Amino acid sequence: MTRKFVDLNCDMGENFGLYKVYPDDKIMKYITSANIACGFHAGDPHVMRYTVQLAKEHNVAVGAHVGFPDLIGFGRRRMECTPQQVKDYVTYQVGALWGYGRSLGVDLQHIKPHGQMYMMAGEDRALSEAIVEAIMELDKNLILFTHRAFVTYDVAKEMGLKVINEFYGDRGTRENGVLVFKFNLGDIGGSPEAMARRIARVVKENKVAAVTGKEIDLQAESVCIHSDTPQALEFFAAVHEILSKENIEITAVKNFI
Amino acid sequence: MTRKFVDLNCDMGENFGLYKVYPDDKIMKYITSANIACGFHAGDPHVMRYTVQLAKEHNVAVGAHVGFPDLIGFGRRRMECTPQQVKDYVTYQVGALWGYGRSLGVDLQHIKPHGQMYMMAGEDRALSEAIVEAIMELDKNLILFTHRAFVTYDVAKEMGLKVINEFYGDRGTRENGVLVFKFNLGDIGGSPEAMARRIARVVKENKVAAVTGKEIDLQAESVCIHSDTPQALEFFAAVHEILSKENIEITAVKNFI
Amino acid sequence: MTRKFVDLNCDMGENFGLYKVYPDDKIMKYITSANIACGFHAGDPHVMRYTVQLAKEHNVAVGAHVGFPDLIGFGRRRMECTPQQVKDYVTYQVGALWGYGRSLGVDLQHIKPHGQMYMMAGEDRALSEAIVEAIMELDKNLILFTHRAFVTYDVAKEMGLKVINEFYGDRGTRENGVLVFKFNLGDIGGSPEAMARRIARVVKENKVAAVTGKEIDLQAESVCIHSDTPQALEFFAAVHEILSKENIEITAVKNFI
Amino acid sequence: MTRKFVDLNCDMGENFGLYKVYPDDKIMKYITSANIACGFHAGDPHVMRYTVQLAKEHNVAVGAHVGFPDLIGFGRRRMECTPQQVKDYVTYQVGALWGYGRSLGVDLQHIKPHGQMYMMAGEDRALSEAIVEAIMELDKNLILFTHRAFVTYDVAKEMGLKVINEFYGDRGTRENGVLVFKFNLGDIGGSPEAMARRIARVVKENKVAAVTGKEIDLQAESVCIHSDTPQALEFFAAVHEILSKENIEITAVKNFI
Repeated sequence: MTRKFVDLNCDMGENFGLYKVYPDDKIMKYITSANIACGFHAGDPHVMRYTVQLAKEHNVAVGAHVGFPDLIGFGRRRMECTPQQVKDYVTYQVGALWGYGRSLGVDLQHIKPHGQMYMMAGEDRALSEAIVEAIMELDKNLILFTHRAFVTYDVAKEMGLKVINEFYGDRGTRENGVLVFKFNLGDIGGSPEAMARRIARVVKENKVAAVTGKEIDLQAESVCIHSDTPQALEFFAAVHEILSKENIEITAVKNFI
Repeated sequence: MTRKFVDLNCDMGENFGLYKVYPDDKIMKYITSANIACGFHAGDPHVMRYTVQLAKEHNVAVGAHVGFPDLIGFGRRRMECTPQQVKDYVTYQVGALWGYGRSLGVDLQHIKPHGQMYMMAGEDRALSEAIVEAIMELDKNLILFTHRAFVTYDVAKEMGLKVINEFYGDRGTRENGVLVFKFNLGDIGGSPEAMARRIARVVKENKVAAVTGKEIDLQAESVCIHSDTPQALEFFAAVHEILSKENIEITAVKNFI
Repeated sequence: MTRKFVDLNCDMGENFGLYKVYPDDKIMKYITSANIACGFHAGDPHVMRYTVQLAKEHNVAVGAHVGFPDLIGFGRRRMECTPQQVKDYVTYQVGALWGYGRSLGVDLQHIKPHGQMYMMAGEDRALSEAIVEAIMELDKNLILFTHRAFVTYDVAKEMGLKVINEFYGDRGTRENGVLVFKFNLGDIGGSPEAMARRIARVVKENKVAAVTGKEIDLQAESVCIHSDTPQALEFFAAVHEILSKENIEITAVKNFI
Repeated sequence: MTRKFVDLNCDMGENFGLYKVYPDDKIMKYITSANIACGFHAGDPHVMRYTVQLAKEHNVAVGAHVGFPDLIGFGRRRMECTPQQVKDYVTYQVGALWGYGRSLGVDLQHIKPHGQMYMMAGEDRALSEAIVEAIMELDKNLILFTHRAFVTYDVAKEMGLKVINEFYGDRGTRENGVLVFKFNLGDIGGSPEAMARRIARVVKENKVAAVTGKEIDLQAESVCIHSDTPQALEFFAAVHEILSKENIEITAVKNFI
């Protein structure tokens, strides 16, 4: 029988100072897991408190979106950090977000590395071990979000950390299940409805078409949609409508794994 | 009967990146409470882990030394932050340090605002309330370090947070018990031994001479000595020697309040 | 005879990293002097080059908008910097912007302190002297933008630096000619047209009504309109239309002082 | 005939805020070219002014030591920046240093990329072009310091920028003339005197032994010695003594190329 549940995650809390670019207040009602920036690649102490509060009000599970210390580059540039440095960055950022969670009565659900930390760890066992170690030393119940095809996933399994696979609903998919960075409406079916049906199919049939056209197997506990994707609100609305019709419940990943 | 216990606190973890200025490894054996910088006015994620680890190895209690986000100015410049901003900065920094404590199996004992955050809050009820609120939302068992003469102390008492008075052993004292910023050997008796006897007298008789010459009453649970004071190691050694002779036990504040 | 020329200045280059909030490309065609952020309170090296290039394409004069090193607070928080520190910050930021100007073949026209550096210097002779000294050591032909009521203006005159008074077209005016921070449409006449007529009156009659209702004398070489003011584009369009009808030429301040 | 002149360059101005680690005041008298950090990997606006002033007092030529924006990592971590980003960073930093030079009446002599910007550009034509372009747009008379074996050198020659080869006097040398990062006294002869004779031989005979033992040809206009190398002051003193005996004049590179 196919899975009946799926989590919907989105990067939140990426505003900074007076820069209020991302409409988190409009997005939050659509999602079940918020990946909250922790001040390294984006976000600041004020934005973090606001975002945790916003998630709480919408009953959205909260996770730390941990990145490289590169505000100008938004954590999207490769940085040659040692595993120990990466571990220290994860500990720091998760701790800081834990502060707001504790302050507002919200437990952390998950950790998702951001940008190049996500991608570099995906291909680097030592970096993945550093991230998993940092998380397990903080709280063994946290859930790591990554790609099934990434070594990060294998390392988490081996070390005993809960880990889930996420599917990028608003991005094309390579044959190994990894996202294509650049947004291209054609890669996801050409319309919000097509994208939503693509997601429903992943959830129910564990199948999706890669950008090469090849049909691949893909089982995902969570679907990521970016808040800065053009038409994001329409995408989210379409996903809710189609998944509801398909009897798929959208709920935080902690509720079904 | 006079108090038999005193805590010895020192600012630790103030190195940054490749800047290794402060000899924390030499100081740590002398102190019982370490105020660890959290990356805002000093310190970085790597220094923080190292310092918590060092404190653990020396069985030194760990606290967050929270400051303004002003690395160039070392948190020693007044910044006109709102109480909410200060609250957010405290939550962030304590959370981050908690991360390393959690990672290394060390509970936080205390919070000490740094530099101008310490001084500004001392004269500002709203800032003090912000700091106390931030702490209590994080952990009601944390202990706040401040001056008895500061409104911060009164606010903590009113709000139900544990708070202790600290005496600056290596600085002159104003008539209200508040430190004099600038180091002056004459203000503290002219020698390490005189400084140590001055501290012993505070602990046993609750008396000290202010820089004006006036004798004042002063009861302090903790004594702060700066690691960057000239001759700091001699000062620490003298304090241990004299206090031992006077049958005063130097122990972390959590052990006797 | 009344003045026939006026400069229109606007804060530009305040985006940062991926944060593209301010529509500089839409504003630039309306203005004659761009105050370009230099990476301390806003802006970054990439935004700076883009903004100088954009100004060049629109034949807009370029100036350095120098601020406190406080990105989270956007330079709008008081920081207790020494005059020497402020001088160093001005030299650094003007130098950096000069780099882009030199790179793109654009001479700098002016310097405008930003946010609290502008306001604090306005009431502090030592800070004003530090700013004027920094500018004169860099280039004696630069023009300083400030308020006539500020000591900064007097200091510049005394020290021999060119200085002009600016009028905040989109803000209410105190009786001493200094802006009211908070935007209030009522303070400027209630409509873009009224605002534009208010500006035209300043230029032609050197008169304006303060927010108290009192009529004051005010002679201004430049008018500042903020790009983040609601309806900014309509304001700019109205100013151009009305000033054109009034035969007032909008041109960079270097062209008529 | 062998060259009779050599420049002695050293990284200066790498202190930051209260972190006063590097003894620039003791080193400056030994060198002829100071590579001054510009606030990205090290240095700050106050340190920069101090360092330019110090160089001026010692009649030492001043250059910009431009690095990646990575203060925690001291610019020694690879960052995947685009050529345009690197160009923007160079323009910004050179401009900022120019500000202090202009302020203090000191012309810039040279540019030296720092840490990983130096190394990455050395193997990357596009990055090298970006650096050379940035410099030439600022001032065609600036001199670029790099390794002869680096593509940076070739690019500078092709584009018409003055460029010199530097030899790392306090580091071992690979067979292509590029430095070995890690300090090892054995690599440079085992003593300050041996190191100095090794430098003299490079200057007079254009020969040096690589760490492999192989004798290589190496012509260098400038010799770099690090101020944070153990025994740096002894090294500098020995270099002056030996080179004086060998009738080699130590003088800024601008004086003889």
